[in-house]
Amino acid sequence: MFSFMSRFCKIIAKYSFIILIFSLLSVRTGNAQNEVEKDAFLIKEIFETTFTKSQAYDWLAFLTQEIGGRLAGSPQAAAAVEFTRQVMDTLELDSVWLQPLMVPHWVRGDVSVVRIINSPVLGTQDLKSIALGNSVGTGPDGLSAEVIEVQSIDELKELGRAAVEGKIVFYNRPMDPKKINTFSAYGGAVGQRGAGPVEAAKLGAVGAIVRSMTTAHDDVPHTGATRIDPDGFNIPAIAISTNDADLLSSVISQAPTHIYMRSNCGMLEDAPSFNVIGEIRGSTYPDEIILVGGHLDSWDVGQGAHDDGAGCMQSIQVLHTLKQIGYRPKRTIRCVMFMNEENGLVGGREYAAESNRKDEFHLAAIESDGGGFTPRGFGCSAVPEKFEEYFKSLSAHWDLLSPYGLSLNAGGSGADINPLKSQGGLLMGLRPDSHRYFDYHHTAEDTFDKVNKRELEMGAAAMTSVVYLIDQYGLDGKEKAQ
Amino acid sequence: MFSFMSRFCKIIAKYSFIILIFSLLSVRTGNAQNEVEKDAFLIKEIFETTFTKSQAYDWLAFLTQEIGGRLAGSPQAAAAVEFTRQVMDTLELDSVWLQPLMVPHWVRGDVSVVRIINSPVLGTQDLKSIALGNSVGTGPDGLSAEVIEVQSIDELKELGRAAVEGKIVFYNRPMDPKKINTFSAYGGAVGQRGAGPVEAAKLGAVGAIVRSMTTAHDDVPHTGATRIDPDGFNIPAIAISTNDADLLSSVISQAPTHIYMRSNCGMLEDAPSFNVIGEIRGSTYPDEIILVGGHLDSWDVGQGAHDDGAGCMQSIQVLHTLKQIGYRPKRTIRCVMFMNEENGLVGGREYAAESNRKDEFHLAAIESDGGGFTPRGFGCSAVPEKFEEYFKSLSAHWDLLSPYGLSLNAGGSGADINPLKSQGGLLMGLRPDSHRYFDYHHTAEDTFDKVNKRELEMGAAAMTSVVYLIDQYGLDGKEKAQ
Repeated sequence: MFSFMSRFCKIIAKYSFIILIFSLLSVRTGNAQNEVEKDAFLIKEIFETTFTKSQAYDWLAFLTQEIGGRLAGSPQAAAAVEFTRQVMDTLELDSVWLQPLMVPHWVRGDVSVVRIINSPVLGTQDLKSIALGNSVGTGPDGLSAEVIEVQSIDELKELGRAAVEGKIVFYNRPMDPKKINTFSAYGGAVGQRGAGPVEAAKLGAVGAIVRSMTTAHDDVPHTGATRIDPDGFNIPAIAISTNDADLLSSVISQAPTHIYMRSNCGMLEDAPSFNVIGEIRGSTYPDEIILVGGHLDSWDVGQGAHDDGAGCMQSIQVLHTLKQIGYRPKRTIRCVMFMNEENGLVGGREYAAESNRKDEFHLAAIESDGGGFTPRGFGCSAVPEKFEEYFKSLSAHWDLLSPYGLSLNAGGSGADINPLKSQGGLLMGLRPDSHRYFDYHHTAEDTFDKVNKRELEMGAAAMTSVVYLIDQYGLDGKEKAQ
Repeated sequence: MFSFMSRFCKIIAKYSFIILIFSLLSVRTGNAQNEVEKDAFLIKEIFETTFTKSQAYDWLAFLTQEIGGRLAGSPQAAAAVEFTRQVMDTLELDSVWLQPLMVPHWVRGDVSVVRIINSPVLGTQDLKSIALGNSVGTGPDGLSAEVIEVQSIDELKELGRAAVEGKIVFYNRPMDPKKINTFSAYGGAVGQRGAGPVEAAKLGAVGAIVRSMTTAHDDVPHTGATRIDPDGFNIPAIAISTNDADLLSSVISQAPTHIYMRSNCGMLEDAPSFNVIGEIRGSTYPDEIILVGGHLDSWDVGQGAHDDGAGCMQSIQVLHTLKQIGYRPKRTIRCVMFMNEENGLVGGREYAAESNRKDEFHLAAIESDGGGFTPRGFGCSAVPEKFEEYFKSLSAHWDLLSPYGLSLNAGGSGADINPLKSQGGLLMGLRPDSHRYFDYHHTAEDTFDKVNKRELEMGAAAMTSVVYLIDQYGLDGKEKAQ
C-alpha cells in the first residue's frame, strides 16, 4: 500500500468537503451562511494548528517519562503539580493557581504475593499479582487459607457465611468481550473489584483475590481502587492477571486449593496536594465557565500515560491552541487538572464545593479520561430539566464536527466533573476509541510509548472545537456569534 | 477511571440500541420490519462470534512471527502461501486452490549505506537508510557525488539537466501532518518515491535519496516500491529516516554536501508463486461472486503485520465466521490472498485476467489493506454508470452498521481488486483508523505486537457484515431476503 489507495482517499476527502459545504449551506442563508463558513474554517484552523504546533505530546513525554506514576500523596504527584503549573505559566493565561487539598495517601509497599500452595494439581506456584489500591496489607507473615471462587457478590451472598468464613474469596467474572465499547464491559465487571473485598470481609473472609479488569488474555495484573469500609470490614485484596485467573480457576475446579497471600501496602495519614488550574477570562460573559480537564494523579505502576496524563495534556493544549490562533473567548475557558481521581476523588469533590461557595456557574465541563486514543465523539449529560435544551443546541452545530469522525451521544461525562452537575450546566466526556484502553489501564504497561502523537492531538483538537462552539453559541439555542 | 464512566457507557449503549431500533422500525412495517430485526440480530451475532471465536489473531501470530516478512519470490512468501492454503483447508470450504503466477523477485542484499562525507558542518556521518524496493544496487564500490535537495519532481525538472547531471538527488517533501486521513498525506508525498528516482536518472543523476513516508519524526527508515524504467533510466534509490532527512536538509543548506551511497540490492529472475483462494459456493446465485481479500506478500523488513497480514487474516475470518454461525450464502463468497501487491501487482492483475477469461462476474469485491486498526467504515467505487445504483442500494441497509461506528463513503477500494472494476461490480475498501498506520508502514516496526486483537476482529466482523448484506439484498435495490 499504496499510491493507489491514497488517490482514492483524496477523492473521499474531496467528496467529504463538498458534502459538508453543501449540507451546511443548503439549510442556511445570508449571515448564517457566513457564520457556518467562518466556523468551518476556524475549526479547520484548530485541527491544523494542533497537528503542527501542539506541545501536548512533548509535555506528556516529560510527565510520564521524567515524573512517572503519580499516586495522590506521592512525591511524583507533587512534581506533577509543579510541572503542570509551570507549563500553564508559559501560556500567558489570565490566571494560574493551585487549589489546596488534603488527599488520601496510600502506599503499595514492595511485596505482592499470591501463591498456590501444595496443590495436588499444580504443586506450589506464584501468580502474577498486584495489590488493589486502598487495600490493607497482610502483615509481614502473610496469610494462608483455602480459596473459593465466585463470579459475583450476589453469588457470594448466596453461599453465605458458613461457606465464606475463614476463606480467601476469588472473584473471577471476566469482562464481556462481546461488548463493542470496552467501558461497558468494564462496567459489567468492576463491581467485584470495588465492593467485592468489603462484602467478602463482612461474611468473614480473610482475603480477596480479583481477576484483572481486561478482555486481554495475558500475564499483566491490573490494579485499581477497592472500597474502604468505615466499619472496618477491610481485608487484604490483590488482583491477579487474567491468564493466572484462568489457571487458578482450573486448579480450584480440580481440588480444594490453598493460597498464601502477602502484601505490605497500606494507608498513611492524609497528605497535602492540589488541583492545578489555569484560565482565560471571558470578554463578554466572564461568569460563564467552560471547563476542560483530566486527572493529574495516576496509579503508581506504569507512567499514567493514557490514564490520565493524556487527558491533562490535551486539556492544557486546548488553552494553548486558543492562544495560538489568537482566539479571544467570550466566556471564561478554564483548565483543571484534578488530583486523586483514582483512589478518593477528593480533587473533583473539593473543586465543586469551592466553586459552589464562590457562586460560580459552569456552563459546560468537558473531561478527557478515556485514554489518548483516536476520539470518536463526546458523551454528554445534565440535570434532566436542562438536558434536552443543551443537547439540541449543541447538536445544531455538530455538522461542523462530523467530518472529523466525531459523534455526539446522550450519556457520559467524567468522574471529576460529575460533582458540578448540580450547577445546572452541561457535562461532557471525550469518547476515544476504546479497544486498546484496557490492555494498559492501571498497569505497568500504561507508558508513553503506547500513546500516538496524532491520536492525542486529534483529541485535543476535538475538545478545543467543542469549547469554541459552546463559547460562540452558548447552549440555549438562541445566541448568535458576535 | 472508573466505575463512574462505565455506568454512563452503559447508558450510551442503551440509548444507541433504542435509537437504532426506533429509527429502523419507524421507516418500515410488517415483513420488512421483521427482516430488519433479523438482520440486526444476525449482524450482532457476527460481531459477537468474531469477538469470541475468531482465529484471525492466532493465524496472524503464526504468519508474522513464524514466517515473517514475505516479499514476492522469497522462501517466506512460499511458506505464507502454504500456510494460508492449509488454514483455509481446515474451514470446510467448498474449494481451496492456488492460482499460479510468475512474480518479480527483488532482493535487498545486506548493505545499505547513505553517508555524509567530509561535511564542513558535520564531518562524516551515516544516516539511517533502507534501499527502495525494485531499486538497482550501487555495485560493491558504492558511489559518491554532491547531493542536491528538491521538494518535488516538478522542482527537479525546473532545475534541469545542468544542475542535476552527476549529482545525487534528495527528495525531501514531507507528508502533510495537517491531513486528518494519513492516506491523503501519503498520496501527497509518495510520488517522489515511486517516480522520483527514474525522473532524476533521466536528467543524469547518479543516485536518489528519498525522505521516508511518515508524519512521525523518528529514526526508522521506510522502504516501498520505486518504479522500474523500461528504457534503463534506473539509479540506486535509498530512503532515509525523517530525522535524518531533516538533518541532511540542514547540512545541505549550510554548505555543499557530498554523499557516499552503497547498496547491493537487485532484481533476480521472475519466480513462481501463487494467489491463494478459497470459496463457499452460493446456493441461489453461485455465479455472482462476493470477494474478500488482502495481499499475502509484504516487505522483507518487519513482519508485514498491518501491511497486510491483518487484511489477509481478516478475509479468511470472514469465511470462517460465516461457517461458524451456520450461514449458507445465496452468492459465492470467495477469499483471495493476492501475491506481489508491494512491488508489481501481478497477483491482482492475473486474478482479474483469469476471472475475465472464465467469464466470471464479481458482484462485489472488498479489500482490507489499510492496517488492522479499528475500522471506521468502507470506501466504495464502481464504473460510473453503476455507482449510484450500488451506493444507494447498500446505503439503504447501512443503518444496521452505523451503531458499530462504520460509515459508507464514495471513493476508495484496493490495489489488488481494482483490475476487477471493468466487470461492472462494486469495489470496496475497508477504511481503518489511519493515525498509526504510517508509524509502521514498510518498516522493521510493522510487527505482530502492533496489532490489537479486538481492533483486528472488529475489521473482520465489519467485512463479514457487509458481505452478509450484499449476499442478502444484492445491489440493485430490488432483491428481497429469502
